[in-house]
Amino acid sequence: MIHWMKEKLEQIGTTCELADLGTQELEGKTVKLPPVLLGTLGTDSAKKTLLVYGHLDVQPAAKSDGWDTEPFELVEKDGKLFGRGSSDDKGPVLCWLHAIRAAQKNNIELPVNIKFCFEGMEESGSVGLPELLEREKDRFLAGVDFVCISDSYWLGTKKPCLTYGLRGICSFFVEVTGIKQDLHSGVFGGVIHEPLQDLMWVMAQLTTVDNRIRIPGLYDQVAPLSAAEEKTYDDIEFDVTEFRESVGASKLPTEDKKTLLLRRWREPSLAFHGIEGAFYGPGEKTVIPSKVIGKFSIRIVPDMDPETVNRLTVEYLNKVWAERGSPNTFKPRPGHSAKPWVVDVNDSNFLAGARAMKRVHGVEPDRIREGCSIPITLTFQELTGKSVLLLPLGAADDMAHSQNEKNNKWNYVEGVKTLLAYIMELGSA
Amino acid sequence: MIHWMKEKLEQIGTTCELADLGTQELEGKTVKLPPVLLGTLGTDSAKKTLLVYGHLDVQPAAKSDGWDTEPFELVEKDGKLFGRGSSDDKGPVLCWLHAIRAAQKNNIELPVNIKFCFEGMEESGSVGLPELLEREKDRFLAGVDFVCISDSYWLGTKKPCLTYGLRGICSFFVEVTGIKQDLHSGVFGGVIHEPLQDLMWVMAQLTTVDNRIRIPGLYDQVAPLSAAEEKTYDDIEFDVTEFRESVGASKLPTEDKKTLLLRRWREPSLAFHGIEGAFYGPGEKTVIPSKVIGKFSIRIVPDMDPETVNRLTVEYLNKVWAERGSPNTFKPRPGHSAKPWVVDVNDSNFLAGARAMKRVHGVEPDRIREGCSIPITLTFQELTGKSVLLLPLGAADDMAHSQNEKNNKWNYVEGVKTLLAYIMELGSA
Repeated sequence: MIHWMKEKLEQIGTTCELADLGTQELEGKTVKLPPVLLGTLGTDSAKKTLLVYGHLDVQPAAKSDGWDTEPFELVEKDGKLFGRGSSDDKGPVLCWLHAIRAAQKNNIELPVNIKFCFEGMEESGSVGLPELLEREKDRFLAGVDFVCISDSYWLGTKKPCLTYGLRGICSFFVEVTGIKQDLHSGVFGGVIHEPLQDLMWVMAQLTTVDNRIRIPGLYDQVAPLSAAEEKTYDDIEFDVTEFRESVGASKLPTEDKKTLLLRRWREPSLAFHGIEGAFYGPGEKTVIPSKVIGKFSIRIVPDMDPETVNRLTVEYLNKVWAERGSPNTFKPRPGHSAKPWVVDVNDSNFLAGARAMKRVHGVEPDRIREGCSIPITLTFQELTGKSVLLLPLGAADDMAHSQNEKNNKWNYVEGVKTLLAYIMELGSA
Repeated sequence: MIHWMKEKLEQIGTTCELADLGTQELEGKTVKLPPVLLGTLGTDSAKKTLLVYGHLDVQPAAKSDGWDTEPFELVEKDGKLFGRGSSDDKGPVLCWLHAIRAAQKNNIELPVNIKFCFEGMEESGSVGLPELLEREKDRFLAGVDFVCISDSYWLGTKKPCLTYGLRGICSFFVEVTGIKQDLHSGVFGGVIHEPLQDLMWVMAQLTTVDNRIRIPGLYDQVAPLSAAEEKTYDDIEFDVTEFRESVGASKLPTEDKKTLLLRRWREPSLAFHGIEGAFYGPGEKTVIPSKVIGKFSIRIVPDMDPETVNRLTVEYLNKVWAERGSPNTFKPRPGHSAKPWVVDVNDSNFLAGARAMKRVHGVEPDRIREGCSIPITLTFQELTGKSVLLLPLGAADDMAHSQNEKNNKWNYVEGVKTLLAYIMELGSA
């Protein structure tokens, strides 16, 4: 994907380079990381410079997960473009390409220089990218005035928005072992401390039925909500019933608009992802698994920091494990983590984005936060010292990370217009 | 496998037929069941008739599960024959073939007629076989005097034994749904009742840390242990330390020989097998699974019956689910089940087996039970009205159902001798 994109960028006149990220230790093997694509389009010192970030890697997907179509073939149906990455994040990356091509075709001079940073490891924690950007601080990143990332979603399906905050993430692995290999459950059942039994019990201690986290001290770190900030939630257009129906739930832990949005954007949450090492196929397999690894992650918000979250979580896991009293071996460990991010919604970069959206859609966009994590946002902000704008193009029901991911054709086309309008607005920002 | 074996049986003079079992509904599809191989070797009305049962299907296996060699290639190493089915149950089936070939090669006349019943669905609950045998009661099964099954294991690695009891099994599926598809854990985390969270909590209510079952009424059904029966456990050769070391555990729920054997053979146990629908691969996938199915099974003993166990278990699951108070959809359902089996150790079939073992190994075999289930044992006993002997050939550490399943070359060769000795002993039984 990186090489494919390099060609496309070169075709529109971009000077490209591939930055090597070295290798990664993965499941005991040393694997080569994909390079990062760095591009420079325009070097006019009279113009300001926009840095565009996107990613070309995607979440895992297989038709057998429950897709209606092959996830790695783009299929157009009912005005929707189905395919893994159509919305997260290959689609938006292509919108940048279309926008610039449209300007070139119509002999419109871009009022800013553009730099591109496209990576292939976002879904795996952007391994190596922060270190690369650190090294490029005084070279590739020098002279950047604005940063724009189009890798999030509208709050609903109709009204555009700009994103000023993101949650961070701390992911965890909980390994339980105790027998040297899988055992026949008939022959050994009843006289073994089963690792899977221990693991499920421990995982069940982490949350309440309403999805509140039981780790002591975790909520204490959340920044207090001022009356002024709370008031901004009143104006946000968000239909709880439509949201509930879109996810297919019969009831939500809260159905109050403000509480629900606060829980998605401004409070931590804990989600369970699965178990490695146990039987996962259809049908039955009467075996006692010997080594199981539970996977969960905690989304974090200001002023939580990953180090404290990791420490509190591992401490709590060790405490409940001690209460469990199992002779098995218990190894909780943090996986990748990312800090939360929040910024000022009134800087020139945000205002240019707002004007562009109003020009294309005819309405003032909502200012929202997101529950997900794009850790590189904070890295760009810290290294350039400039404003980072999250400019979402896709609708809330695009189903990123899920089955049948799609991008509405309408959003895709309007998205191209929005990005070009934003580039033009930056000329007077 | 069934067709392969048919050829082998025909080569030793067996008249074979393939009994059709029809179809099965599996995961929404209609699939054809493998036929059952019925063979008749000898029809001398002056001789008694032995029925031999075995199965040619095996448990699932992949090298990536942690095998040192390809599971479906037979590999000889250090006097051991590694491969899926080497011990459960392709190896023992081949021993019957070798035994009869050995007699034929040495012009030894077999003192009994032999009938063979080899199936291909044992590891999936012998679907269709009980109904077939019911239909064959007055034809193929008519005139059978003895039944022998070689599909279990020695209690240790050195001393042979005969098996007079088996546990039954009730397997269960617990399905939790609540959202229409997998969701991004950042975007939706905190405002969803997660099915996986509910499932792990419910599963954790089924047992204690020491692997005792928490379902009310379950232990009440277990047949009382008489003083005489309890005394038979004193003489059984069983080394708890060796057992603990063979499974690789640091500690067992009980390390008292008698209590441990009673728990394996004479008490129910509950084992967790895994979860379908959640993330199971290595690494991370930050998704909230939408539909998860927990899998566990309960091994049952006399006088427990599957109907009562299924009812008590589903009632308990529904009770803890009500306590949970989740709005998600909860569907517990029983899977396949099999009754337990126990017989008299002093009938002529058992005594012939004991004499054969003494002749080959020079020692009186232990009389043991097994924790696992071979439900067809009971079917044969009920339909023929005759004694069923379980005559194990493999060692306790053969790792049936697990990684690196093997059969010791020594057990394999002595097994052939034992089966032939047993056939010859039946001549005077």
